[in-house]
Parts: sequence; C-alpha cells; structure tokens
Amino acid sequence: METKENILALGEFTHKTAPTKSINVNGADFTYRSFGKKEGIPVIFLQHFTGNMDNWDPEVTNAIASNYPVILFNNRGVGSSNGTTPENVTEMAKDAVDFIRALGYNKVNILGFSLGGFIGQEIAANYPELVNKLILAGTGSIGGKAIAQLESHLEKAFVDGPDRVLINLFFSKTPSSIKAGEAFLERLSERKIDRDSPTSQDTIASQAKAIINYGLATDENNTQLKAIKQPVLIVNGNQDNMVDSINSYIMLQNIQNAKLVLWSDSGHGGIFQYSKDFSQEVNSFLLN
Amino acid sequence: METKENILALGEFTHKTAPTKSINVNGADFTYRSFGKKEGIPVIFLQHFTGNMDNWDPEVTNAIASNYPVILFNNRGVGSSNGTTPENVTEMAKDAVDFIRALGYNKVNILGFSLGGFIGQEIAANYPELVNKLILAGTGSIGGKAIAQLESHLEKAFVDGPDRVLINLFFSKTPSSIKAGEAFLERLSERKIDRDSPTSQDTIASQAKAIINYGLATDENNTQLKAIKQPVLIVNGNQDNMVDSINSYIMLQNIQNAKLVLWSDSGHGGIFQYSKDFSQEVNSFLLN
Repeated sequence: METKENILALGEFTHKTAPTKSINVNGADFTYRSFGKKEGIPVIFLQHFTGNMDNWDPEVTNAIASNYPVILFNNRGVGSSNGTTPENVTEMAKDAVDFIRALGYNKVNILGFSLGGFIGQEIAANYPELVNKLILAGTGSIGGKAIAQLESHLEKAFVDGPDRVLINLFFSKTPSSIKAGEAFLERLSERKIDRDSPTSQDTIASQAKAIINYGLATDENNTQLKAIKQPVLIVNGNQDNMVDSINSYIMLQNIQNAKLVLWSDSGHGGIFQYSKDFSQEVNSFLLN
Repeated sequence: METKENILALGEFTHKTAPTKSINVNGADFTYRSFGKKEGIPVIFLQHFTGNMDNWDPEVTNAIASNYPVILFNNRGVGSSNGTTPENVTEMAKDAVDFIRALGYNKVNILGFSLGGFIGQEIAANYPELVNKLILAGTGSIGGKAIAQLESHLEKAFVDGPDRVLINLFFSKTPSSIKAGEAFLERLSERKIDRDSPTSQDTIASQAKAIINYGLATDENNTQLKAIKQPVLIVNGNQDNMVDSINSYIMLQNIQNAKLVLWSDSGHGGIFQYSKDFSQEVNSFLLN
C-alpha cells in the first residue's frame, strides 16, 4: 500500500529520478512511479498503445508534478508490469481502477492519452465517485472515426523504419512538426537509470484487439459520453491520423462539462509538440 | 492623432471610466475608448452585428487591459460614429485599418467577434504587416456554415421579446448558460456615464447585407484562411446558432498557426459565458 510516508517523499523526485515501485493488484505486480507535489488530488496517467512509463514526456509530467502528485504506471501486462493484458478496454479500465484503489486513493484526476483516453472515459462514466477531473488527449469515443483502422495506420508509420515510427504516428509531415517530434524523442531518453521494460508482443497484440474492437463498437446515442459528469479537458493535434481529430469535437458535443483545445500543424502527439501550452492548460483546468 | 501623451494616460482608465474620444477617418468621426496597460502592442476590438462599444463585456476588456492597451471603437456609421456603414466586409476592414493607422499604430493585435471576426480575417490576410496576432471569436470564414441564414437566426431570437434577444442569440438553452447570459447583461450595464449611442437601423441593414453576402460567398480553397500567417487564437461556444461552431474547427484546419478553444454548454457568446477562461487564454496567447 502507498502509505502516507511514501506520499510525503514524492516531492523529492522528478520524472528522471522517481524510483520504479511495484504493487500487487489481483495477483499481478503493477509497476509505477510517483513524484511531484506532496498534497492534492493525484493525476493518474493512462498510457497509449505499446507505451510504458518511459513514453511519457518529462516536459509534461514534471510541469504537472509541480502542482499535483503525479503517478505513472503500467497496466496489467504492460512494460515491466506482469500479468496478462486483457483484450478489451472495459477490463483495462477495471484493472486501472483496482490499481488506483490498491494505492489507497478514492479520488483522482485522470489523464488518458489515446488508448489511455478510451480507458479514462470508461472509468469516468462507470466509476464516477473515483474521478475528480478527466483529461482526454488524442482520443475518441466508442466507434470513433478511424480508430478501427489501427493496422493501416501502423503500416504507414513503419515505412521509414522502426526509429521513425513514433514520429510518423504522433507528428505531422511539416518540418516544424517533425522537428518537435525529434525533440520529443530526445526528451524520452533523458531518464538514464532504472528504465522501464519494453511492452511484450503478446501485450501489443491484446491492446491492438482492444483498440480495433473499441473502434468497431457502436454507441449511437453517445450514452457513455453523456454519462460523464466530471469536468473534462479534451486536447489533440488538428491532424491526428490515428484517432481522427474530429473525434475530439464529437466528444465535446456530447460531454456535459468540457473544454476542447486543438492545435494546428500537429498530429496524435499534439500534447508533446505543444508540451508547454498543454501543461499550462492542464494545470489551469485542474486548479479552477 | 493619438499622441504619446494620450497613450500614457491609458492606465488611469477602465472599461467603466474610459472617456469616449473621436478621430476623423476619411471624412467621418470614429468614436473610440482606450484604456489599460500603457506599454505594449494594443488589442483592437472589432465588434459584432448591431453592437457598439457598450456591448463589450467589461470582465473581458478589463482582464486584457491589465496586460495590454485596449482600444474599443465604432466602425463607420456604427453606434456614435458617423458616416455611412458599407454593405460589405471588405470596406469595413479598410475602414478599421484606416482608423488604426489614424491612431498612429503600425502593429496591433486584433480581437474580432462574429462580424468583427470576418473583418479581422480580412485585415490579417490583406494587411499582414499591421497585425501581430489575431483572436477570432464566434466567427467563421467566407461562406461558412449557417452564416447566410442571419434572418432566420434573428427571427428565432426575437420570439421572447427584445430584452431576451441577446440571451437567445449568444447563449444556450440550458439553465446554466441562461444564467451566464443574465450575468453578462448585468455587466454590460455596469458603465453608467457616457454610454454609447445605439446603432441606427440603416447601419443594421447594411451590416446584415454584409453578413449575408459573406455567408453566400465562396472561397473553396480557403485562400483567405491560408493567407493568414500570424498566430491565431480561435474560440467559441460548442452550440453557436448564429455562426455554427464547426466553422471554428474549419478555420483551425486551414490557418497555418492556430489554436482552437471551444467550451461546452454555450453558444455564440461563449467568450462572455467563460469570460475568465477566455481572458486567460487571450493573455497567455498574446504573451507567448
């Protein structure tokens, strides 16, 4: 259990130095790192397809950590967590909720990126008492445009070799966006010690099934979006090729209390291209 | 001419106290008020259909004035300005440019709301050297969705009598949005002395023609939006019944360097419903 003692130690650490800890959740060890402000409702980061804790941008996590406790973690089977990754978003959401409760929290802020945003919506709708505020980045609702075409998106992203996949998936084709992508990759390598483990091919296959099925599912009346009553900040780049940017507009139109922020000249990883503005939006959203 | 002496006096005044001044622009007297910060690139406010200087929300103008010089004015024939209001956006833009230059400025920030946003786009595209940054609120581009249906929008707005027109046009039908609308009307009446004159029926008719023709015009390749190279902040409510909110999304997709902010539970006057968040967005946008 995350004791009061652990929490008081958060402030000593940053994205770069926070030790990787582990907690048993229903039979599997979930790895996590906590750092930042000692007091306040923590911000739980829900990661994208294939990503582990090292895939978060330190410029974002540290900026939010200067105002709130920040908790990065690997869901069941992801990165250095063990256990078997479920093949659907609903079970991933339940795992994340169990992890949050195992840490001893009964109220958190959630920041979900892409697949993490699918999970975040489900948690906010189905475990409303647990969620204070929700941040949805580069994501969409059940059956959202272009989500089910994951394989086609990945094929296009791999054409320049494995080193360029993240840039192809997360950034636009303009020189300014590509440059921002390269700076983002640099930041991801800033943490030198105690790096996370890569996500296994089995987990990636299970996540892919979950994403494709989420994209193929339907929720014609947007009942899940309408069930979200917490304040929501929705953000994305304007040319998201993985989860079409129009999905952000649609979420805004169906969530009761939401603010939408989209940036030009950017894609799925708009929050990393505009890391400063994004962090400022998050801090202001959580404060007000 | 706005002399250095006048500019140094800005800081003494607020929305409520700034005296109405007048300057001759190509044969007509344009009325204006300036207040706020003494130094920096001023923010020129371009007003909506029928509106005069008293239609600006003091919560917005004062918040921006705490960081920048603010200039409210009536374009040709509007409110207490004299002259004949032109029947097209292009001439309105030229009048606004001539007014700005008559004040002695060669670089300004522009905040255009609705019709003011049509004018703002034209100025940024056609007088690029004059515009530092552009804020587009509750507006759309040439031929934008629902703009030409002005008469139908007005008919619906008048059903509850003249006192409710602004609330019907600017706010959503939810209790929270209507309440925000009533608070906005209260704020509009805060200035007690030296009130502006109502806009004449002739001017309103000319403005209506300009709006409808702007909505009927086409710019299929979005050449005007693509000609805007300055940083642009685009904002609106999510349910704008006058200038459909999707127009904001379309502007984002065609302006090179833009950020879009939309708020839920709000309409055409989203910037007044979320006056604090809007002012914070503007100040942050102008600063960075």
